Amino acid sequence: MLEVDWLSRRPMRALSLCLGLFVATLALADEGMWTYDNVPKARIKARYGFEPTDAWLRKAMLSSARLAGGCSASFVSGSGLVMTNHHCARSCVQQLSTQEHDFIKNGFYAAKPEDEVRCPEIEVNQLTQITDVTDRVNKATAGLEGEARKKAEVAVKSTISKECQTTPDLRCDVVTLYHGGQYHLYHYKRYQDVRLVFAPEEAIAFFGGDPDNFMFPRYDLDVSFLRVYENGKPLKAEHYFGWSKTGAKDGELTFVSGHPGATERQLTVAQLEYQRDVALPERLMFLAQVRGYLTEYQHRGPEQKRHSNDVLFGTENSYKALSGRFQALTDKTLFQAKVAEENSFRDKVAQDPAQKQTVGGAWDAIAKATQDLKTIRKQLAHYQGAMLGSKMFGFAKVLVQGTAELQKPNEQRYPEFSDAALPEVTQRLFSKAPVYPELEIARLTFGLTKMREDLGPDDPFVKKVLGTDSPEALATRLINGSKLADPVLREQLWKGGAAAVKASTDPMVQFAFLIDPDARAIRQKYESTIEPVITKSSELIARARFQMEGTSHYPDATFTLRLSFGQVRGYDESGHHVNPLTTLDGAFTRATGSFPFALPDSWLKAKSSLTLGTPFDMATTNDIIGGNSGSPMFNKDLEITGLVFDGNIESLGGEYGFDENVNRAVAVESAALLEALKKIYHADRVVKELKR
Amino acid sequence: MLEVDWLSRRPMRALSLCLGLFVATLALADEGMWTYDNVPKARIKARYGFEPTDAWLRKAMLSSARLAGGCSASFVSGSGLVMTNHHCARSCVQQLSTQEHDFIKNGFYAAKPEDEVRCPEIEVNQLTQITDVTDRVNKATAGLEGEARKKAEVAVKSTISKECQTTPDLRCDVVTLYHGGQYHLYHYKRYQDVRLVFAPEEAIAFFGGDPDNFMFPRYDLDVSFLRVYENGKPLKAEHYFGWSKTGAKDGELTFVSGHPGATERQLTVAQLEYQRDVALPERLMFLAQVRGYLTEYQHRGPEQKRHSNDVLFGTENSYKALSGRFQALTDKTLFQAKVAEENSFRDKVAQDPAQKQTVGGAWDAIAKATQDLKTIRKQLAHYQGAMLGSKMFGFAKVLVQGTAELQKPNEQRYPEFSDAALPEVTQRLFSKAPVYPELEIARLTFGLTKMREDLGPDDPFVKKVLGTDSPEALATRLINGSKLADPVLREQLWKGGAAAVKASTDPMVQFAFLIDPDARAIRQKYESTIEPVITKSSELIARARFQMEGTSHYPDATFTLRLSFGQVRGYDESGHHVNPLTTLDGAFTRATGSFPFALPDSWLKAKSSLTLGTPFDMATTNDIIGGNSGSPMFNKDLEITGLVFDGNIESLGGEYGFDENVNRAVAVESAALLEALKKIYHADRVVKELKR
Repeated sequence: MLEVDWLSRRPMRALSLCLGLFVATLALADEGMWTYDNVPKARIKARYGFEPTDAWLRKAMLSSARLAGGCSASFVSGSGLVMTNHHCARSCVQQLSTQEHDFIKNGFYAAKPEDEVRCPEIEVNQLTQITDVTDRVNKATAGLEGEARKKAEVAVKSTISKECQTTPDLRCDVVTLYHGGQYHLYHYKRYQDVRLVFAPEEAIAFFGGDPDNFMFPRYDLDVSFLRVYENGKPLKAEHYFGWSKTGAKDGELTFVSGHPGATERQLTVAQLEYQRDVALPERLMFLAQVRGYLTEYQHRGPEQKRHSNDVLFGTENSYKALSGRFQALTDKTLFQAKVAEENSFRDKVAQDPAQKQTVGGAWDAIAKATQDLKTIRKQLAHYQGAMLGSKMFGFAKVLVQGTAELQKPNEQRYPEFSDAALPEVTQRLFSKAPVYPELEIARLTFGLTKMREDLGPDDPFVKKVLGTDSPEALATRLINGSKLADPVLREQLWKGGAAAVKASTDPMVQFAFLIDPDARAIRQKYESTIEPVITKSSELIARARFQMEGTSHYPDATFTLRLSFGQVRGYDESGHHVNPLTTLDGAFTRATGSFPFALPDSWLKAKSSLTLGTPFDMATTNDIIGGNSGSPMFNKDLEITGLVFDGNIESLGGEYGFDENVNRAVAVESAALLEALKKIYHADRVVKELKR
Repeated sequence: MLEVDWLSRRPMRALSLCLGLFVATLALADEGMWTYDNVPKARIKARYGFEPTDAWLRKAMLSSARLAGGCSASFVSGSGLVMTNHHCARSCVQQLSTQEHDFIKNGFYAAKPEDEVRCPEIEVNQLTQITDVTDRVNKATAGLEGEARKKAEVAVKSTISKECQTTPDLRCDVVTLYHGGQYHLYHYKRYQDVRLVFAPEEAIAFFGGDPDNFMFPRYDLDVSFLRVYENGKPLKAEHYFGWSKTGAKDGELTFVSGHPGATERQLTVAQLEYQRDVALPERLMFLAQVRGYLTEYQHRGPEQKRHSNDVLFGTENSYKALSGRFQALTDKTLFQAKVAEENSFRDKVAQDPAQKQTVGGAWDAIAKATQDLKTIRKQLAHYQGAMLGSKMFGFAKVLVQGTAELQKPNEQRYPEFSDAALPEVTQRLFSKAPVYPELEIARLTFGLTKMREDLGPDDPFVKKVLGTDSPEALATRLINGSKLADPVLREQLWKGGAAAVKASTDPMVQFAFLIDPDARAIRQKYESTIEPVITKSSELIARARFQMEGTSHYPDATFTLRLSFGQVRGYDESGHHVNPLTTLDGAFTRATGSFPFALPDSWLKAKSSLTLGTPFDMATTNDIIGGNSGSPMFNKDLEITGLVFDGNIESLGGEYGFDENVNRAVAVESAALLEALKKIYHADRVVKELKR
């Protein structure tokens, strides 16, 4: 499943650890996640005989959408109807569920407009404009090093965002592309009133479950429909995708417009080694253990099972995604190619005296900084509470750090508390989504145990946190003693500002205060001694590449809107050919009746009414990655032919490089979506809105 | 904890996958796990001014003992008293416990001789003689390749063992040393009537728990006493260690006589890469997930907690041990040294035409076979049921395969069912140790889920095993339907032979039959196409080393008796010096009152009576590894000065190479043992037997 893997990126994300570097060396064939201001029209024409016009591109851009939490989506009607994956909306579906109504299990359909229910934490963004602000950022950071450079960059970005973001329904992000080669300002329309319209049963949305995840052939109806509201009314959308009458055919040109989260195609060898030997295996072992305890936690009872489903889903998804990446990096052929590529470019640089002087030391500087990162990586994660896994701690941290940051001028704050970022912060902080104390205790116990394990029981920070408590005793005391599950209290504290938070006797708030100095100190160390070295050196390498190898490249993914082109195409795996299209029929053949291969009753009942030869899921050569979940797949007439929800297992190596022979995006075909909506779910309101 | 890590080696062990290769290149300083027939007396004398005599060595050998399940031990009285670690006897302590009497929690002491209770599954071995059978084995395999070679080797080994093992109380193992450079016949006295005499509370035996495991400084009383019985009476032991009056001093020469399980100091670079990139990370992720679910399983209730303690302990121990190994292998300096060492030796070989012709291709052959292993590794593990984790499946497999094998002549059987191996097989099969069905279901569910995950739901084997069942449904049906928890039934079936087993309607027996053809086929594939290539090539490399670099080396560890010399010595870690001795006092300082840092009541009560300055645990330079747990540590007068129970975290890299600067064995000091036995446990019978 291709939502942005925040779970595995979290310690990085909190630090804006920009691991993706720069420009692909040679964007060939269907490779590439192209920014809308730099779509290789000629290349598309040469390969597929179709050249997108500017008007075409503009319509595709404005019909695309992003779920700020980590997914992609599209507008599919003039009444603000938004299509995305089931797994992209599943947090909402879970949050709206209760002991009596389990919408994850049973699905959801608002038969009447007034049945549409607001999702507590979904924010939809629509990209409206891209502005180049490279010169302004470069001017602000010119000649600076280390901490000074970092501060200047944060300040200028916060200022630019704030100038642009004149009302809360705008969102303006300064995006670093080509790892510093370009800085662009992305202007979005921001929608926070987003309501659930339709979601099928998880049994078919995620048919095959974890065993089939990242696999193909596939038989999943991973779809949900949301609706964007403005001023309490469905949005009148000017731009939206049509719906293909014919669906996608084998070999047909397909576009994907979505938000790939991050790729690392330009990491140096030292950084790749760090990923292979340290970061990925550690993260995988962590996730494996979380997966183990959550699976068993589900035995505590049906409610505990329901409460923990969503976290377990995310954990398993990350685990499988990262396993694929790890396998790609331990593949000797790929790694040796990376080494050869770097050596060849370093040789080129060495032969050019001017380049040698400027860039020659960049690789060693990155290697050194990576080594430094290795020595502080555990403190970096744990001192900031990034592994604690508790929502209530998360609230407390936002309250403690956020209200303190708000006392500073906008441009001096942590970027996540800049004025431009506040609407997203408060949407989550004030969310009415339920918090499950029993699950919170289990997760926090695990997080504290892991902290002690990673840092050792004699670490001063560990001693300060645990005192004479066991992790379980401390977790129980904090969760049971805290009132932060109550959104009203959180809103009061936030609005009361630093003074109110400081005065709080809530034990979780006090815990967040206890570790705040350590959290800030380690972050400061990282941001002043490691991050700027990597940023600056990567930028130098990137600029040298620009100068020496030309400009027809795409930047590493940054969870910003990208266009990818490709075609419906099968591939060879373990000596046999995999057909690019499955049919509805196949789902019935594959079903065993046992989880996760049990079809929902609605499907079994409707079987006789279905056209079983209808295409179901399909594989295409589009270059996608985590974050592309929910992306529209469409033809040259801007009509939906599919809904991206996954990549095959070979696509996971796409983190480091694209191999058109085997890397495949996986989508639900448009005809299957329509067939199911009509004949299984009788979701007539939805069907009627889709423009065919 | 240093027992042999069967848990992580299991898939290997079942296949006699001999990963350890050959001779260390340069055994310097205190490095070396020396076989008793090749102790470097002169080197010890040169370094420590003491030269062991043959009589001294013979006495040390005969006073040493092995627990066949994976630990070391020693005779410490003339009445068959055996000292080992608590964690080496903990399976027995758990098996003897009931809902009413939890000896893991409360400890055990047989105040009267008749209170000593037999351990269901402990076998003690005492090495009495070593015979060189290299010529005979070489003659049997001369000129053979592939499967023929493997069969010939198995046959000649089984025949030699059987000739030697004339009565069930003898045990004769043909041991492959220097990876085929030598084959030695190890003659043991076998004792299966072994009774529990004393065990302290787990809270002090494993004080500090998993966080302190493989750490130093340390404060553990990881000891237990067993007694070997012969003909229903305590064994009259002729040879046993005395007890030091003074204990060990900083800098003092210390010997360790024990059974290191396996080292891999002579793997080729291709094999090390396989360990680093495939075998270790996969095993670690597996163990991490097991750890996760077992930790949470303990929440099901106090009995479930008690039942699963032992498995959780073993899992965490393996996880930490393998993590250390993985870290060692991902250390660039170590790995580059391994690469350089191999390249240098290959260069030498290439310069000698004769050697080049014979050995030149060995490294590539190993690399190719390792690549082949990679392609079948998952089938190899799962088709044989090696990851299922169910004791009841284990019984069924032994019944199905064992009774079938017994129909063949001794020399054609799988080695684990050769006549020489049968006493150990039946001891475990007929064991009265309890089986916990609820835990069995949880473990089998996990094992089946993992099988489906690793092989994929479309694998024909997976389809055959699961059919339309979920893993949980199948596991529940098999465990609840099977009667194999009953040792009487298992004995009946075994004694009824193949016909009785074939006729059984027990679902677990039928399940073992179902997968038996696949288990045999994949094993045959491995043993005919991969193992012989590695064996033969490793042997060639080893012989070339012998010829080119002399003979003053020690073989990789093979769970056979080894002598190691060293001294009590501190070390530097993260910039500070670690003192080699702790005191009883330190345990009280370290105690927080919360698990795993809570001292047992017996210690708190006795505190005022203790001499708190008594040395507690200590670090020495002896070269040890998993399997050395329970080894006696003694001085030149053959008096016990300590009891090895662990190594520091740096010692885990000892799998691949020994670094005297930081690699340390960790032992309980003899004075602490005595102080605790006397003043805390009042174990007067034990104290009186120790010869001081």
